[in-house]
Amino acid sequence: MSVSEICRAAAHASHAVRELNTGVKDDILRAMAEAIDTGREELKQANSLDLEAAAAAGTSRTLLDRLTLTDGRIDAMVRAVHTVIALPDPVGEVVRGETRPQGLVIEQVREPLGVVAVIYEARPNVAVDVAALCLKSGNAAVLRGSSIARHTNEAVFDKLSAVLAADERVPTDAVQMIRDVSRDAALELMRAKEHVDLLVPRGGPELIRSVEDNATVPTVIDGAGNCHLYIDASADPAMASDITVNGKTSRPSVCNAVETLVVHEDLAGTWLPKVLDELAGRDVSVRGCPRTREVWPQAEPATEADWGTEYLDLVLAVRVVADLDEAIGHINRWGTSNAEGIVAQDISAARRFARAVDSGSVFVNASTRYSDGGEFGYGVEIGVSTQKLHARGPMGLESLTCVKNVVWGSGHVRILR
Amino acid sequence: MSVSEICRAAAHASHAVRELNTGVKDDILRAMAEAIDTGREELKQANSLDLEAAAAAGTSRTLLDRLTLTDGRIDAMVRAVHTVIALPDPVGEVVRGETRPQGLVIEQVREPLGVVAVIYEARPNVAVDVAALCLKSGNAAVLRGSSIARHTNEAVFDKLSAVLAADERVPTDAVQMIRDVSRDAALELMRAKEHVDLLVPRGGPELIRSVEDNATVPTVIDGAGNCHLYIDASADPAMASDITVNGKTSRPSVCNAVETLVVHEDLAGTWLPKVLDELAGRDVSVRGCPRTREVWPQAEPATEADWGTEYLDLVLAVRVVADLDEAIGHINRWGTSNAEGIVAQDISAARRFARAVDSGSVFVNASTRYSDGGEFGYGVEIGVSTQKLHARGPMGLESLTCVKNVVWGSGHVRILR
Repeated sequence: MSVSEICRAAAHASHAVRELNTGVKDDILRAMAEAIDTGREELKQANSLDLEAAAAAGTSRTLLDRLTLTDGRIDAMVRAVHTVIALPDPVGEVVRGETRPQGLVIEQVREPLGVVAVIYEARPNVAVDVAALCLKSGNAAVLRGSSIARHTNEAVFDKLSAVLAADERVPTDAVQMIRDVSRDAALELMRAKEHVDLLVPRGGPELIRSVEDNATVPTVIDGAGNCHLYIDASADPAMASDITVNGKTSRPSVCNAVETLVVHEDLAGTWLPKVLDELAGRDVSVRGCPRTREVWPQAEPATEADWGTEYLDLVLAVRVVADLDEAIGHINRWGTSNAEGIVAQDISAARRFARAVDSGSVFVNASTRYSDGGEFGYGVEIGVSTQKLHARGPMGLESLTCVKNVVWGSGHVRILR
Repeated sequence: MSVSEICRAAAHASHAVRELNTGVKDDILRAMAEAIDTGREELKQANSLDLEAAAAAGTSRTLLDRLTLTDGRIDAMVRAVHTVIALPDPVGEVVRGETRPQGLVIEQVREPLGVVAVIYEARPNVAVDVAALCLKSGNAAVLRGSSIARHTNEAVFDKLSAVLAADERVPTDAVQMIRDVSRDAALELMRAKEHVDLLVPRGGPELIRSVEDNATVPTVIDGAGNCHLYIDASADPAMASDITVNGKTSRPSVCNAVETLVVHEDLAGTWLPKVLDELAGRDVSVRGCPRTREVWPQAEPATEADWGTEYLDLVLAVRVVADLDEAIGHINRWGTSNAEGIVAQDISAARRFARAVDSGSVFVNASTRYSDGGEFGYGVEIGVSTQKLHARGPMGLESLTCVKNVVWGSGHVRILR
């Protein structure tokens, strides 16, 4: 099937998916979880084909990490589906309702968007997360993975598709995969305006730019995560170290890892060199501003480019600032509206930072690594929105719905004033 | 100032507007309402210049109606501002908050978007509505009216701007108007991605298409209103007539006026000819499908183009259908997701229609003319969204905000599973 045929079939299926009862949707998700769980050997075998090819092609450590399917990660995929099953169905929720003075009853009712498409790179869990969230929220899904994970993605999709084919209550076309991994196929999907209600790109800057330049379908951008952590003068030093080390080193390849550490000058001579020693001991390379290099000369000099770079690796940019204002200014200039953190005991500094920083999520005395649909209670995430409209930060079931106004009258006609 | 200088100034002002207390914002809105009220003679004088030029240029009745400023409409502008004053301030509202199992407190806090731009045609009230809604929701506003209303728009803007200039608590740049009415200026605004957080176009199909083709800033489309009214076999005949006549004739130039009447075949020989006689007596021209012309031969034959046309005039397309499914099919094929209505006593038909029709607002036994921010309790509207993402239907204060995740920890670090 061509991309547009796939999208048309998904749109057709979406009419039936929209009307499925929660019980039926949960049955299907349970069967999908089981299919992934019991089919794990096949999945790992397919994954090893992709890993071998990727390693032979000299793929980066970051990408290899994202691509790798372990038993632990398969367990997490299965667990994610069960978390989504446990969530309330958003469809039909009346989010607001009132009787207006003229007697009209206005209900705002949550309903599915229709067809949700996701273009993603490497991570094999995305197909499962997206299928679970889309079905639970009454949407049809169109998946388009990258060539590097082709065998893994097809193996995962085949498991999901077999579940749909075996259950006559739901159309098999409710979850589809575009197997054509060419650039043209991606472009066709970005322009399938007649059939696609939402496209979420999950990948690197090149993919995002291509979607921004070419998409005519509605999009929510899951953009870069150039995340900042600011250490205020009032910070508890041990807490600041823990959160810094966790933010940078616990999983450097993900979008909520810290890329730039911003430090109040009061801590430059005391706390900063110690935490940089600790980070260096964990193989982190440091790119510092001049004041950083004064107190920790091992740092490479940071250039402007460093402030704007999402390393996704064991590299950290460090900047010393004179005060909170300078920190906020730096973050709003260079941040990508993904996740930023502050460590502070001073309540005014924390409150001001939370309000003034332009970001999807602001963490006070907690690691930015918590910017995650699972941690936020959304089960899993369809992505992390770095835009302001429709959804911001980790996106769960609600972000896959829209709200319709249903107005009940009893013969009301509007008389002009 | 150039367009990009105006947008930059608005972005700069938005930082201060964002932090204004509700009391200050309401003071400013009260002063604006008074300035419009007491300055009405100047406004009408400026409006008469525009009306003379428009009439001389052979402007359509519809557009002249939209352009005209009467005392009644000025009263409505003043009243609209007072309605916005009476609304709760959306900024800072915690829309959801919970303590997660790991101990993090997650608050989702409503905050202003930043800079909201509106490109609008003809209607002089838009500047006042937009300024009131933007300021109340903590946003800076950039207005760009059309050449046909140039004198009126400048007179209105000068009243608003004088209020801002007289109050030192708020930056004068908080509300701005682009006086350059050239196409190039509009294009520059559509591409001011660095400074504009939301653009809402309010105008005809040509403007909408230009925004869809050229905008790089985030947009919410206030698109066409090809509204449908379906009369079910179970309808109360008198109620059906009242709602039909109100939908078509009370103000044909607006986007919530009925453009196509869809009628169940059971009513074709009885109710339909009578209502068409009544409409004809009110100067409505009818374009009918073959079955309509069988029972009311005076109708012109409807072509496919009629189903897709928003007449905005005393013209009505009429189609007879065999059942509810055919009605829903017709509406979902030709509708513009603005507002659609059903007249029915049968509860199953009404519920099914409300769920299955793909539209921003669905009216059951009420005129589509109620699709309006004022009637919905939003004070006034920034526009009527015909898209699914971010906002749907009449847009009030909430649609000018986004929701940030603010997460409070006590030294939380994320341990990998």
